[in-house]
Amino acid sequence: MSERVKEILSYYRSENPGVLTNLARLLNHGRLAGTGRMLILPVDQGFEHGPGRSFAPNPPTYDPLYHFQFAIDAGLNAYASLLGFLEAGAAEFAGEIPLILKVNSHDLLHPEKDPMGAQTASVADALRLGCVAIGYTIYPGTVDRRIQYEQLRELIKEARCAGLPTVVWAYPRGGGLSKEGETAVDVIAYAAQIAAQLGAHIIKTKLPTAHIEQDEARKVYEAQKIPLTSLKERIHHVVQSAFDGRRIVIFSGGPKEDDAKLFEEAKAIRDGGGFGSIIGRNSFQRERTQALALLDKLIRIYQGNN
Amino acid sequence: MSERVKEILSYYRSENPGVLTNLARLLNHGRLAGTGRMLILPVDQGFEHGPGRSFAPNPPTYDPLYHFQFAIDAGLNAYASLLGFLEAGAAEFAGEIPLILKVNSHDLLHPEKDPMGAQTASVADALRLGCVAIGYTIYPGTVDRRIQYEQLRELIKEARCAGLPTVVWAYPRGGGLSKEGETAVDVIAYAAQIAAQLGAHIIKTKLPTAHIEQDEARKVYEAQKIPLTSLKERIHHVVQSAFDGRRIVIFSGGPKEDDAKLFEEAKAIRDGGGFGSIIGRNSFQRERTQALALLDKLIRIYQGNN
Amino acid sequence: MSERVKEILSYYRSENPGVLTNLARLLNHGRLAGTGRMLILPVDQGFEHGPGRSFAPNPPTYDPLYHFQFAIDAGLNAYASLLGFLEAGAAEFAGEIPLILKVNSHDLLHPEKDPMGAQTASVADALRLGCVAIGYTIYPGTVDRRIQYEQLRELIKEARCAGLPTVVWAYPRGGGLSKEGETAVDVIAYAAQIAAQLGAHIIKTKLPTAHIEQDEARKVYEAQKIPLTSLKERIHHVVQSAFDGRRIVIFSGGPKEDDAKLFEEAKAIRDGGGFGSIIGRNSFQRERTQALALLDKLIRIYQGNN
Amino acid sequence: MSERVKEILSYYRSENPGVLTNLARLLNHGRLAGTGRMLILPVDQGFEHGPGRSFAPNPPTYDPLYHFQFAIDAGLNAYASLLGFLEAGAAEFAGEIPLILKVNSHDLLHPEKDPMGAQTASVADALRLGCVAIGYTIYPGTVDRRIQYEQLRELIKEARCAGLPTVVWAYPRGGGLSKEGETAVDVIAYAAQIAAQLGAHIIKTKLPTAHIEQDEARKVYEAQKIPLTSLKERIHHVVQSAFDGRRIVIFSGGPKEDDAKLFEEAKAIRDGGGFGSIIGRNSFQRERTQALALLDKLIRIYQGNN
Amino acid sequence: MSERVKEILSYYRSENPGVLTNLARLLNHGRLAGTGRMLILPVDQGFEHGPGRSFAPNPPTYDPLYHFQFAIDAGLNAYASLLGFLEAGAAEFAGEIPLILKVNSHDLLHPEKDPMGAQTASVADALRLGCVAIGYTIYPGTVDRRIQYEQLRELIKEARCAGLPTVVWAYPRGGGLSKEGETAVDVIAYAAQIAAQLGAHIIKTKLPTAHIEQDEARKVYEAQKIPLTSLKERIHHVVQSAFDGRRIVIFSGGPKEDDAKLFEEAKAIRDGGGFGSIIGRNSFQRERTQALALLDKLIRIYQGNN
Repeated sequence: MSERVKEILSYYRSENPGVLTNLARLLNHGRLAGTGRMLILPVDQGFEHGPGRSFAPNPPTYDPLYHFQFAIDAGLNAYASLLGFLEAGAAEFAGEIPLILKVNSHDLLHPEKDPMGAQTASVADALRLGCVAIGYTIYPGTVDRRIQYEQLRELIKEARCAGLPTVVWAYPRGGGLSKEGETAVDVIAYAAQIAAQLGAHIIKTKLPTAHIEQDEARKVYEAQKIPLTSLKERIHHVVQSAFDGRRIVIFSGGPKEDDAKLFEEAKAIRDGGGFGSIIGRNSFQRERTQALALLDKLIRIYQGNN
Repeated sequence: MSERVKEILSYYRSENPGVLTNLARLLNHGRLAGTGRMLILPVDQGFEHGPGRSFAPNPPTYDPLYHFQFAIDAGLNAYASLLGFLEAGAAEFAGEIPLILKVNSHDLLHPEKDPMGAQTASVADALRLGCVAIGYTIYPGTVDRRIQYEQLRELIKEARCAGLPTVVWAYPRGGGLSKEGETAVDVIAYAAQIAAQLGAHIIKTKLPTAHIEQDEARKVYEAQKIPLTSLKERIHHVVQSAFDGRRIVIFSGGPKEDDAKLFEEAKAIRDGGGFGSIIGRNSFQRERTQALALLDKLIRIYQGNN
Repeated sequence: MSERVKEILSYYRSENPGVLTNLARLLNHGRLAGTGRMLILPVDQGFEHGPGRSFAPNPPTYDPLYHFQFAIDAGLNAYASLLGFLEAGAAEFAGEIPLILKVNSHDLLHPEKDPMGAQTASVADALRLGCVAIGYTIYPGTVDRRIQYEQLRELIKEARCAGLPTVVWAYPRGGGLSKEGETAVDVIAYAAQIAAQLGAHIIKTKLPTAHIEQDEARKVYEAQKIPLTSLKERIHHVVQSAFDGRRIVIFSGGPKEDDAKLFEEAKAIRDGGGFGSIIGRNSFQRERTQALALLDKLIRIYQGNN
Repeated sequence: MSERVKEILSYYRSENPGVLTNLARLLNHGRLAGTGRMLILPVDQGFEHGPGRSFAPNPPTYDPLYHFQFAIDAGLNAYASLLGFLEAGAAEFAGEIPLILKVNSHDLLHPEKDPMGAQTASVADALRLGCVAIGYTIYPGTVDRRIQYEQLRELIKEARCAGLPTVVWAYPRGGGLSKEGETAVDVIAYAAQIAAQLGAHIIKTKLPTAHIEQDEARKVYEAQKIPLTSLKERIHHVVQSAFDGRRIVIFSGGPKEDDAKLFEEAKAIRDGGGFGSIIGRNSFQRERTQALALLDKLIRIYQGNN
Repeated sequence: MSERVKEILSYYRSENPGVLTNLARLLNHGRLAGTGRMLILPVDQGFEHGPGRSFAPNPPTYDPLYHFQFAIDAGLNAYASLLGFLEAGAAEFAGEIPLILKVNSHDLLHPEKDPMGAQTASVADALRLGCVAIGYTIYPGTVDRRIQYEQLRELIKEARCAGLPTVVWAYPRGGGLSKEGETAVDVIAYAAQIAAQLGAHIIKTKLPTAHIEQDEARKVYEAQKIPLTSLKERIHHVVQSAFDGRRIVIFSGGPKEDDAKLFEEAKAIRDGGGFGSIIGRNSFQRERTQALALLDKLIRIYQGNN
């Protein structure tokens, strides 16, 4: 076990050995094993955005088996997906890559200001499919976030009993926020703090912009002269807001982008103290060979070879 | 066991032997046994549309015993119906034909934009009545779909423990969709993906039209030049959206139609990679002899003798 | 056991011996024992309409003991009432007449378009009070009928386990219907079908008028030339809609009426294939001697002596 | 055991010996022991109206111990209060006076047309504090009365299992009623009937006025010439509406009033067939010596010495 | 055990020894041990107001370990915080200071008139983290306070079974109150009474202003000439409203203020009969040395050395 992984595990001293074991499995798998950095493949877009939008750009990805093999070949830390996709391949790829079962989901078939996911899988499902963790999305900023927080707490409790850590997708959304507010640095930091206080073991959130949404936060940022100009500084603020670096925080990629921008972002995450990336559409919507090349480059950045 | 049935069962490797056994019973009963195709008689219209509208055109169908005998005589794979209808004949016809208990229902006595069925039967009911599967309707596009998805997950879990697979009626409806959107190809594909991700073993949906409902989907279809002109192509897209053919997808007939159209549709389903039809009003609202003749023709189409 | 009672019990072959035994107790008690017809005294009006409106016309009826004695003296099949009224006399009259515990109730102290009863008693209450069945009201046509159907299913399941059949009051009401629609023949038939599909053992509904509420139903009635002019024909259609006579359907009397009309209605019920009447205000709001005479006449009609 | 108490207990023949024992304890304690009449001290106003309004007029009453001692010294049948007040003295006064735990409460800190109490204590709390009964308020006339009725039924069931009777505060309120309607004689009678049908062992309601709220009730009262002019007559109608005297009905005092009026009301309750009074603000908001003198006078009235 | 602590424990005679033991632990820890006074550090502002607003003024406070060490060094009675913050240090500081787990939380990411916290931790969490009590916020004055009261009752019951007392944050808020009404003396007194009646062992509320919110309360205050001019008098009224001093009532500090004001308030709390303070932003938003000096002064005031 590397010193860095030992240090990270020491932040979770209240946890039982089962949870620590599975955190270690995530940190010690793939090409970033032992570095304390993570790169995860998430595939929930078939449900979140629809199958045509998600998979038509690269038709082999309609097949659930594709994604297991891709995550293995790319040397990622883990593959995170929904119940159906994991059921369709968990037996075939048993033991080859850590799996994270996303246990809630939301679709776009009814327009709504305040999204609220359905709980579409359980801790028992994660166990029978051989997963090492569960994942859950909260939408801070929605009117019904209270229900989400309580459901999350119940799931974390149940998962802990089963020795599974919980990855929280902390995505600010809803009627309480402006559109830019959803990625505002104060709001992303707030969402990370909420996830951490709720007991998340790993927090996944979006890259923060320089926009500040809440007046009360702006006053303090200005009074204290908090530097938030560069992405690296904003990453630092978000990581600090998640218990000063004592919780694993990773960042999501968003829609397909050009490679240079992705590399810049990865460097900012790395240098700002972030723990890694979760990268879906930017990997599986490219042709397989190109996608593997892209991920190779990102892994090298997180390895520090750049 | 035919090679095709073995192959289909291999798509469900995560499942327990009880579920596999009952899937095999469905695939291996009636005149389509072993072909990998299915033809199912559903009779839930007495509740969904009212008894007069449903049964008056062919008065012997008011009697629950009629439908059991009819499905047996036609050589179908299964008979799917509601609690009351199954209770009224399950003892009399025990062991003669696989039964599917539809466990939720919706009536038309109160107009509503976003339908939401009542749970009108349970897994325990299915077991005491000797059924091989349960059925459940989701309405993607309704405001309360979240509740439906969660209820479905709970039922699938319970049914699996009892060795029963779950058939999901995935019917887009509700305030999130235009009227044409309910059968739009992108929406039907989306509904099939959702059902598959929720863990449905068999997905029943409607025949997709060439209409495209969601702008974001249209952009991708156009960019990727996805062929959607013929029904066969659209069936292909829907089946692809249900895990690239690794989940059983069957199509419903809708209101009574002329025979030629039904035959054309069956051929498109067959040639597009669909697994069969579920055909209610087009069979039981005809006089018995005529209905048996129609089903004989459809069976021949699915047998490939055409 | 008479042949007719044996035949009726044969319609319930899926049921356990406990439920069959209590159905037999209902069919074999009082002066109509063995005929397959039933006459039941229901007293829930103190809650449904208020005590003054219900009991002031015949003050001895304020006393809960009155009704037990009255149903016994009239030779009825059963006495159906609410928890409080049954608790107040069940020990005194133990074993003298079959009791049906009505387990939900609704009052008139708050105006509402869509009534929704409270569950005011349980299967356990029915058992400790020595009842042979429970009763439950559904209001098809209300916005919350889904909740009612699900509560009913739960109660039927629990009652079955205790060997008790369930009597369903199927009363169309609510914002989905016009005032005349509440007794329209298509709607009453629809309500009877719903109750039967939900697993009701005995269905109580209102006398259907010649009004037709739903356009889609009217089209079919006209196309199929369904005769609905006479009450007898409408009764026939309702009974047919409840599994073609394979479920017990009885009809309620409504507000106090003149005797001749009541006798005509009873004959129509009898000749249309109905199984009997449930008659409350028309019996207990008359002076006791007159009420007994009226019921004597109705019993004779159902015995066929007329 | 006096004949009158034996007679009253005979009205509850369906009940288990535990409930009968605790009803007997209530009827056989204090200076009215054995008379079949009851005088109870209720102190829930600190929660219902606020502490200043309730206790400032007589500051020693802020102390929870005051009320126990006062009820004992006055020779009352029982002391009814909320969880906090009973917890604060139940050990100190164990066994000295029957206690009734009021298990729901409502405050005035948010204006609302349709009040709905919170369940603030449980049957288990009543048992661990040594109480002989629980108390629960229903508000017939509110939009959510259904929830209250169902919660009450659940509590009565649980309390019965523990051998505890239930006292129901039946207080008409809410958007379904005019302000005068809350104490209208037809409405109070209706509320008493509802409480009795729900299984209340003791019903507490307000003194009925001569106002009639519901048109349908007025028609019957006029047609039947029901005498409702004097308070005694109205009390009679309310008691009749609670199973013709077969359920204990007591009346609440309301805001602080002059002594003469209170004495007149007590005589009307006594002579109209009521079972007693529950008297809070009129006793504890007076200086202790004066309050004891007032209660002494009321006890004499109920003893018939007046 | 000091006489004063023995006296305070005697107010809780209904409680089990486990709860008494943990109350004693709170009263007997730190520099105020044995005095019957308490000074508690609460840190829930990261969730309640956001991390930047809360911690940026003193960046070391982003680290969860800071607060444990600070509360220990200041000689406080206890440290109260949220699940995440306690999980992050409970193992490191096990046994060094009594911990209170705040089990509900509310954020500011969606504007709302009537706040309603999420339940973000459980009694089981408190036990596994070694806490001596749980904390829960109620918002009297909100439309959904009923749900909060019922959730609190459930938690108190569960905590008592585990030997843990409950600290209730009684914070008037919501659409039922004006802005000044939230700290009005009548409203604060009402909130304290409600918390006490709900079974709170320790009540934390805000400092009451001289404003009176409710007309009915004002009438009584004026009629009875209740002195409410000085803070000390108002503190006295609030403590009296919490069972005349028989429940522990402490007061919260609010936003950062100048020292002189804080010292005046502490003296008023002490002299008005209050049991102490809970002081968050005024301590952790100052530089550590200054904050320790401030708390030293406050402790001396509560020790009476002033």
